[in-house]
Amino acid sequence: MAIVLGANQYGKAEIRLLHVSRDGGTHMIRDLSVSVALSGDLAATHLTGDNTAVLTTDAQKNTVFAFAKEYGVDQIEDFALLLARHFVDSQAAISFARITVEQYPWERLGGHSFCRSGREIRTAMVSYDGHDSWIVSGLRDLTLLNSAGSEFWGFARDRYTTLAETTDRILATAVNARWRHASPLTPEEGSGGSMGSGGSGGSGAGWADSYGAARDLLLAAFADTHSYSLQQTLFAMGQRVLDGRPEIAEIRLSLPNKHHFEVDMSPFGLENAGEVFYAADRPYGLIEGTVTRNEAPPPGKAW
Amino acid sequence: MAIVLGANQYGKAEIRLLHVSRDGGTHMIRDLSVSVALSGDLAATHLTGDNTAVLTTDAQKNTVFAFAKEYGVDQIEDFALLLARHFVDSQAAISFARITVEQYPWERLGGHSFCRSGREIRTAMVSYDGHDSWIVSGLRDLTLLNSAGSEFWGFARDRYTTLAETTDRILATAVNARWRHASPLTPEEGSGGSMGSGGSGGSGAGWADSYGAARDLLLAAFADTHSYSLQQTLFAMGQRVLDGRPEIAEIRLSLPNKHHFEVDMSPFGLENAGEVFYAADRPYGLIEGTVTRNEAPPPGKAW
Amino acid sequence: MAIVLGANQYGKAEIRLLHVSRDGGTHMIRDLSVSVALSGDLAATHLTGDNTAVLTTDAQKNTVFAFAKEYGVDQIEDFALLLARHFVDSQAAISFARITVEQYPWERLGGHSFCRSGREIRTAMVSYDGHDSWIVSGLRDLTLLNSAGSEFWGFARDRYTTLAETTDRILATAVNARWRHASPLTPEEGSGGSMGSGGSGGSGAGWADSYGAARDLLLAAFADTHSYSLQQTLFAMGQRVLDGRPEIAEIRLSLPNKHHFEVDMSPFGLENAGEVFYAADRPYGLIEGTVTRNEAPPPGKAW
Amino acid sequence: MAIVLGANQYGKAEIRLLHVSRDGGTHMIRDLSVSVALSGDLAATHLTGDNTAVLTTDAQKNTVFAFAKEYGVDQIEDFALLLARHFVDSQAAISFARITVEQYPWERLGGHSFCRSGREIRTAMVSYDGHDSWIVSGLRDLTLLNSAGSEFWGFARDRYTTLAETTDRILATAVNARWRHASPLTPEEGSGGSMGSGGSGGSGAGWADSYGAARDLLLAAFADTHSYSLQQTLFAMGQRVLDGRPEIAEIRLSLPNKHHFEVDMSPFGLENAGEVFYAADRPYGLIEGTVTRNEAPPPGKAW
Repeated sequence: MAIVLGANQYGKAEIRLLHVSRDGGTHMIRDLSVSVALSGDLAATHLTGDNTAVLTTDAQKNTVFAFAKEYGVDQIEDFALLLARHFVDSQAAISFARITVEQYPWERLGGHSFCRSGREIRTAMVSYDGHDSWIVSGLRDLTLLNSAGSEFWGFARDRYTTLAETTDRILATAVNARWRHASPLTPEEGSGGSMGSGGSGGSGAGWADSYGAARDLLLAAFADTHSYSLQQTLFAMGQRVLDGRPEIAEIRLSLPNKHHFEVDMSPFGLENAGEVFYAADRPYGLIEGTVTRNEAPPPGKAW
Repeated sequence: MAIVLGANQYGKAEIRLLHVSRDGGTHMIRDLSVSVALSGDLAATHLTGDNTAVLTTDAQKNTVFAFAKEYGVDQIEDFALLLARHFVDSQAAISFARITVEQYPWERLGGHSFCRSGREIRTAMVSYDGHDSWIVSGLRDLTLLNSAGSEFWGFARDRYTTLAETTDRILATAVNARWRHASPLTPEEGSGGSMGSGGSGGSGAGWADSYGAARDLLLAAFADTHSYSLQQTLFAMGQRVLDGRPEIAEIRLSLPNKHHFEVDMSPFGLENAGEVFYAADRPYGLIEGTVTRNEAPPPGKAW
Repeated sequence: MAIVLGANQYGKAEIRLLHVSRDGGTHMIRDLSVSVALSGDLAATHLTGDNTAVLTTDAQKNTVFAFAKEYGVDQIEDFALLLARHFVDSQAAISFARITVEQYPWERLGGHSFCRSGREIRTAMVSYDGHDSWIVSGLRDLTLLNSAGSEFWGFARDRYTTLAETTDRILATAVNARWRHASPLTPEEGSGGSMGSGGSGGSGAGWADSYGAARDLLLAAFADTHSYSLQQTLFAMGQRVLDGRPEIAEIRLSLPNKHHFEVDMSPFGLENAGEVFYAADRPYGLIEGTVTRNEAPPPGKAW
Repeated sequence: MAIVLGANQYGKAEIRLLHVSRDGGTHMIRDLSVSVALSGDLAATHLTGDNTAVLTTDAQKNTVFAFAKEYGVDQIEDFALLLARHFVDSQAAISFARITVEQYPWERLGGHSFCRSGREIRTAMVSYDGHDSWIVSGLRDLTLLNSAGSEFWGFARDRYTTLAETTDRILATAVNARWRHASPLTPEEGSGGSMGSGGSGGSGAGWADSYGAARDLLLAAFADTHSYSLQQTLFAMGQRVLDGRPEIAEIRLSLPNKHHFEVDMSPFGLENAGEVFYAADRPYGLIEGTVTRNEAPPPGKAW
C-alpha cells in the first residue's frame, strides 16, 4: 500500500492586531486575534519541498494587517470574510480558507482611554470555498452562576453511583457557544450582504445587533430556566437563541459543569445550609450539544 | 560551620471558596481564593519530623471554610484579619500569620444569577504578629490602554539604542497595585475597627468604599495624565490615590509596558498613520515603583 | 420550523489519576488524566430534565478510579477500551463512548522515587459504538529544534510578501501527533487483543512497543530530513512512521512553526552569522496534515 | 505630608534568546529568558517625564542580544554578571542592576537536532551595585514523587482538624530552589572569577559543575529521606546541598505539597490499599524555608 498525503491545511495563527480609528478626539479600538488556515493543491511542498504554491504564513500575517488598514475593522464577521475571499480568489492553489477571529472586549474610560472588560470574548469563524461562504459567530469564557433554581435528581444508578440527589445546588459554567447563520453568502451579495438579504447574516450593525441579541438571550435563558440538569439548561439556552433570532440556523454549546461542592461542616459542629462551597478545578463535567431547526439548511463547510 | 534552619513559613494556598448569603430571594456571593502562611517556632518538624507544633494545612483549609460559615464574608480585609488573628492567637507555636485573599468579580443578572466580570481582581494581604496587624489592599489584572496622549522621547542613547523617539504611541498596561493602610490595627480595635479610628483602615462599608475610590483614582489618573513615560504615569497614579485617600500611606505599582508596535506598511505601498498595531507578548517593559508619604508610619511587617 | 436537539455528548473531563503498583520494594506509577464522553438516547434530560437515562459524571469518575483498582493500569489504550466498553455495554441509553487519556512521563530515581520528565505526553483516544472499537494513539508537546538543515525559498509572492528567502534557518516545532491503528477491534478479540491479531492494535507490550517505536521514528525523521518546508518535514515524519509500523493506518500531525528570528545587529556594527535568535511567541505558523495509506481501512468513528 | 517617590526599578522582562554555537557540524544551543531590572537616580522620569537618565528597555533588549553575539553564552551566571556590570558601569544614573535568567533544557538528538527536555529549568539571579556582585543559582519545576517512605502524624489538633494520621502517604512536590554563592564577587575578579577564588562562585565549568552537583544532591536527598513531614524533607534537601557544596552559603526552597488523596472505594465494595490516588490541583500546601550556615557571609543585596 502506498503512503499518501491526506487532508491538510496551513496558515498563520494568533495574529494579535489592535486597530484604532478616530472620530475627532474620540477613538474606537478593535483588539483581535486572527488565525488563517488555507487548503488546496499543496501536495508539492509536502512531497518534494517545492514551495511554488505556498503563500507564506508571513505574507498572510502582513495581509491581515494591511487589510485592517485598507478596509478598517468593524464587525469581525465582515473582516474575516474579506480575508477568506482574498486568499482563495487571489491564490490559484488555494481552494478553501477559514478565518477565525477572537475579539477582546474593552470599555471606554475617556475619549482615547479604555479598560479591558473580561466578561466574554466574541468569536467568528468564516469559511469560503471559492463559491460559498459560511459564517459562524460565537463567544467564549462567559462565566455564569446560579445560586438557586438548580436541581439534580432521578438519575441512573449503578454500582459506582454515590452522588446524592439534590433539589438545590450551585450551577456554574463558562459558556462556549458558536452559532451558524442561516444560509451561506454567495459572492453576489458582496462583502456587505445585509441582515435583510435572505436572513443570511449581514454586515455592520447587523452582525453587532445579532451578536448582542444572541448573547443576551443566552444570559436570560441561563438566569430564568429552573434547571433539572445542565443538559436542560443547555437546550433552553439554544432554543431561546433560535426562537429569538431567525437569522441563526444552529447553535453549538459546550458547557463545563464547574462544580461547587457544599463543604461538610458536621465535623466542626456546624451546619452548612447552602452557604459555603468549595470551587473545584478538576475533574469537571462537560456537557456539549447542538440545538438546530428541523429544516435548517445543511451546514456545508461551516464547521 | 554548622548548617541551620533560617526563615521559614508554611500554609495552605489557593483555597477556592464561594460564599452565598441570602436576603429573601436576593442572593449575594463572594468568590475568593484564600492563602494562609504561618511562621513561628517550627524548628522541630524541620529538624526531626516532630510535628507537635504543626497545625495541618488541612485544618487551615477547614478553618477558612468554617469561618466563612461562622462569621460570613463581607470585606476581604476583615475576613483575612479574623483568620490571621485566629491562627496566631490559638496556636502557641505560631507567632506570625499572613493571609492573602483574591476576590473575583461577579455582576448580577438576577436575584440568584450572576455573570463573572473580568475587569479586575481585588486583593488583600493581612499580616498579624500577635500584637499588631497590617492591612494591604489592592488589585491586579486591571488592563488599561490609551490610544493617544502618550509620548516617549529625550531618553538616554548608547551604542545599543535604536528606538525612535515618538510623540504619539499606544500606552497599555495591566495594573498590579497594592496599597498599605496608614497605621497598624491593634487588637483593642477588634476585628471591626472602623475607617474613622485613626484613619487606620476600617471595616464593612469602609473597606469597600476605600477600595472603590482607590480603583477609580487609578483609572482616572491613567486616563487623564498626558504621559512622557510609563514611570511618569505610574507616579501620577500613585500620587492621585494618596492625594484622594488619607487612609492610604503607601502604594506599590507594578506596570508591565504591554507594547503595541505600529506595523510598517511601506513595503505594501500603504501608510499606517497610527491605525494598525501589533500587540506583542514578550519581551515587555516592567516598570515598578512605590509612591508614599514622607512622614508615613513605618511599614513594619506589612509586606 | 421546529427547534430540535442535534448531536450531543456529555461526560467527566480531566480525571487526574495516579496508580501505584508494587513489585516488592520497586514501585511502578501511572499518572493519567482521563476524560469520558458518552452519547446516545439523551433527549429526555435535554428536553424535560428527566434524568432517568443519565449516568452521572460523578459515577463516571468513580468508575475510572474503581477500574484502575480492579484491572490495574498498564497500557492506556487497554485501560481506555475497558472503560469505553463498560459504559456502552452497561447503560441501555448509551450507544457510543469515547475515552481520552493523557499519560504524564516520569523517570525513576529509586525504588519508589520518581522525577517528572517533560519530554512528551503520551495520549490515547478510544471509541466504541457497541460493536466496533477504534484506537488512536499519540503524543503532544514533543518540542524539537534543528539549528541547521532547514531552508525555505521558492515560495509564492504577492503584494504582501516581504519574507526573505533563506537556505539556513532554525526549524522548531512542538509535535502533536495522533495515529490510528489499522483496523477496528471487534468484541470477540476481547480487551486483550494482541498486536498479532490482524495488525489491529494490541495490548500490553504491544501498545508500549508500538508507541515507543512511533515516537522514535518521528524523532529520527525530524532530525535527519533536510527540510525545504515544515510541510515537507511533516510528510516525512508521517511517512517514516507508516513505513516502519504496519499496524498504523493513518497519522495526523499538527506542527506549530515556532519562529526563531535572526536578530539584526547591523545597527550595533555587529554581524550575526546565525548565532543569536529571538524566539517569538505569536503569531506562529500552524502546519497540519494527514499521512495515510491509499488502501487504509475507513476511519469509521475513530476521530 | 508630601507625597514622594519610594523604591523603584524598571527594565525589559522575558527576553527570549536562542544562542547557537558551532563546533564543526556539532551545534550547541542555549535557550534563555533574560530579564533586566535597573534602579538608580530615576526621579526625573517619574516626577516630570524627563527621560534623560532612562536607558530604554528596548536598548536593554538589544544589549542582551548583542552581548550574546559578542561574548557568547556559556554559563548563565557569567552571562548575567556581564550584563549587570555593563548597565551599572556604563550608565551614570544606574546604581544597581539585577539580571534574572531562566535556561530551558534541551537534549541532543543529532549534530544539530535537539529535543526539549522538561525535567527542570535552571535559573540564575545576579545583582551588582557598582562594587560588589551577588550570585544566586537555582532551578524550578523539578517535579518529584515518592510513593513510599513518607509519614505524617503527631501533629497539632484543634477544633478544625479532621485529617487522619498516616504512616504511608504519597509525597509529591515541584521543587523551586535558589542558592546563594558564598561571597560576593568584587570587580577585580573580573567576569571570569574561578570557583577556586575564595570559594566565591566561579565561571565556566565551575558554575556548571556546581549546578549539576546541587541538583543531584536535591534529588538524592528527596529520594532517600524517610519523611515525617515535607518540612523535614525540605531541611534534609537543603542540608545535603550545603554539606556537599562548600561554595554555597544558603539555599531557599519553596515546595508545594502536591496532594494525592487515596480514593475511598468502600462504597463500591472495593479496598484501595494504596493503589489509586486522586491528584488534586487546589488548594495545596506550600512549605517554604531557608537552610544556611551559621557563619555564612551576610546576604547583602543578593535577594
